[in-house]
Parts: sequence; C-alpha cells; structure tokens
Amino acid sequence: MSDFTPTSRTKVRQKPQRGVYERAAIYSILDEAFVCQIGFVLDGQPYVMPTNYVRVGDRLFLHGSTASRMFRALAGGAALCLSVTLIDGLVLAPSATGHSINYRSVVVLGKAEVIEDAKEKFEAMHAFVERVIPGRWESVRPPGEQELKGTMVLAVPLAEVSAKVRTGPPVDDEQEYIREVWTGVLPLQLTPQEPVADPRGKAGIPVPGYVRNYSRR
Amino acid sequence: MSDFTPTSRTKVRQKPQRGVYERAAIYSILDEAFVCQIGFVLDGQPYVMPTNYVRVGDRLFLHGSTASRMFRALAGGAALCLSVTLIDGLVLAPSATGHSINYRSVVVLGKAEVIEDAKEKFEAMHAFVERVIPGRWESVRPPGEQELKGTMVLAVPLAEVSAKVRTGPPVDDEQEYIREVWTGVLPLQLTPQEPVADPRGKAGIPVPGYVRNYSRR
Repeated sequence: MSDFTPTSRTKVRQKPQRGVYERAAIYSILDEAFVCQIGFVLDGQPYVMPTNYVRVGDRLFLHGSTASRMFRALAGGAALCLSVTLIDGLVLAPSATGHSINYRSVVVLGKAEVIEDAKEKFEAMHAFVERVIPGRWESVRPPGEQELKGTMVLAVPLAEVSAKVRTGPPVDDEQEYIREVWTGVLPLQLTPQEPVADPRGKAGIPVPGYVRNYSRR
Repeated sequence: MSDFTPTSRTKVRQKPQRGVYERAAIYSILDEAFVCQIGFVLDGQPYVMPTNYVRVGDRLFLHGSTASRMFRALAGGAALCLSVTLIDGLVLAPSATGHSINYRSVVVLGKAEVIEDAKEKFEAMHAFVERVIPGRWESVRPPGEQELKGTMVLAVPLAEVSAKVRTGPPVDDEQEYIREVWTGVLPLQLTPQEPVADPRGKAGIPVPGYVRNYSRR
C-alpha cells in the first residue's frame, strides 16, 4: 500500500510541515469522518455541498438522488474536489495571532465514476450503513431493486490526495511567554449524546450496544 | 433584518422542505460553527479548503497568509462558495435507505472584499479570537502593526445565502415499522474535552472559566 505522491495541486504549500501523504494516516482520517464537502463547478461558479461518504478500499463511495444537480454534474465527469475536515481543538497562545485550531483535513481531487452494477451498488449501500453505524446492517430492511435504481452511487478513486494536520500546543516565540495567561489546547470531539427513541418505534426494544457504545475513533 | 431571498443558485431543490432562508436561523448556524469550507476555481479545477471564519454583522471575516493561493485568488475577485456544516446526529430507520444524518448546513455565494484599513483589520482579529473563544481577548497580546500587515483579512457579504437543515426522527413509511429493530436518533455534538496545559505555559495559572465552561451553543 504505497503512499500518495504530492502533485502541484495537492502539495501543501502553506505551512508545508503540516502536509501528510502517508496512505494509512489519510485513511484513518477518512474513516473517522463520514461527511465530506464536494466542490464542483457549474457555469464557472464553484459550489460546495456536504454529503455522506464511506471509504471502501482505495475509493470513496457517495450516494444521492438521480435528480440532484451535483450528482448529475459529477456523473457527467465534472472535475471535483472532495474535502474532509475533523476539528480536534482550540489552541490558546499568549499572542492573539498565535491562536490556532487543531484539525485533520484531507483533500481529494479527481472525477467520480458511476456505479451501475446492481451488486456493486448493493455492496455500497451496505457500506453506507455499516461503516457509519457498525453493527446496524443485519437489523434493517436491505434496499430493494427500485430503491437501488433511484439511488445514484458514485465512486471517487483515491489517487490525487493529501492531508494537512495540526496537532499540539501553541508555537509562539519564547518571548511571548512573559504574559500571565493560561495557554494550551482545549480538545474538541464529535461526541455521541443520549439516544433519542423514535416516537413511532416499537416499544420494549432496548437501545442496541452499537448505538449505546458508538464511537468514531 | 430581512430574510434571504432564494436565488436559482441557492434555492434548495433536493428535499425543498429542508430549505431555510430566515436570517436569524442561518446566523445561529454560522455563529455555532467556526470552520467553513471555501470552494473556488483555479484553471477550471475546483478546490475546497477549510478555514476559520467569524460572523460580524452581515459579513463573514476570513484571515490567512498573503502568500496563500486561495487568499490571493479570493482577493483577486474569484467567485467563491462558502459552506458550513454542523453534524447533529445519526438517524436510524427500519429500512437501510431510510437512514440519514441530522445536520444544519449553510451555503454562501459571492465574492470576498479585502479589508485594507488597519483599524478594521484589528477589529476583525479581535473577532477571530473573541468569537471563537469568548472572554479570551483581554488576556492575550494584541496583534502588532507587522502582524496585521502579514495577515490578509477578507470579508464575505452575506447576501446570496441559504441553509438546509434536517432534524428529527426517521421518516420511513409506516409499513416499515413491522421490524423488531430499535429506531431513533443518536445525537452527535462537538464537545469540549479536558483542557491540555501548554508544556511551556506558566505554572500555577488556573484554567480560565471561559475554557472550563466552553460551549458553542
């Protein structure tokens, strides 16, 4: 499993020390998040839209309506930029300009391929459920033929990819540390809260362990 | 404070019932988040990059290096799409295709204006610190003249804007509810964790209340 080669389009130029091109590190970010932002161009205007994704092997799968403007553009071969960002914390420095944000972000450039094969679409739907909520699939009604037909599934190959990551404490110059001020990091994490039962749900069914113990890490 | 008028570019077409155009509701989303994704076009290729922003009145402020490719493109008048997404939960339905994500997302189209005036830049820097970490500004060293010169501050007017919001339980048809499966919502929230003191920080300074009790809501 070779690492990514930075291109002129994915090489991290601002603060290059934050650039990450190792495949395993990038896949770990892609597997913790499950919402990406997709940039595409229509009539010269850039658009950015959030959407669910999952990684399977060296591809990201997307799904959407066959009527969606974005999915139609992507299916037509439009160039895309797919961005994933995890916010990890606030960095509190002695100086105002030393303040920062700890984050892990991935950018993927390329084009999407339409998945037409029903079996491959079904496997992608399995991944959308099972990789967002591991353990869920076996309890739900699987998608039928008509549902598969109405859903567009796209695959984005992970070829031109890089990540940018900031971790750790402030990096202000030593001379800034004369101030009597608390400095450090306030970590932030997307955290599950108490599950909310469906008002239409069946009575007496306990919250499953995969919901009760849900974690993205 | 008038609401936004959907344009052909910002009107929510997929699941239009999720479209939100009320200014107060949109500002509440913009004020809870602090990282946006900016889409812009270079040589026909869309790029999407995460960056910090704050809202001040009817504008969003951005800051970056004067050497940044994105900031230079935006300063040159490139069309942009700014996207903000808050992930609120996982929606667990009886059917696989009924699964969804609760979210609040905002899209802003337009162009950025360069803030040149030193006083206005200083006020933007104040907002970057104080709106991301309320209470922090008075303890830190404010930016000096050189720091202000090295930082590009852009303002994006909030004119062509819409939001898309999904809330609540699954919406599967009643007939799906024959399955013996837990359904409902697992709320997710970006949550502060235990503060991590700076190894170079002064000893004996307690964690301030604005860190200890940090909340975006």
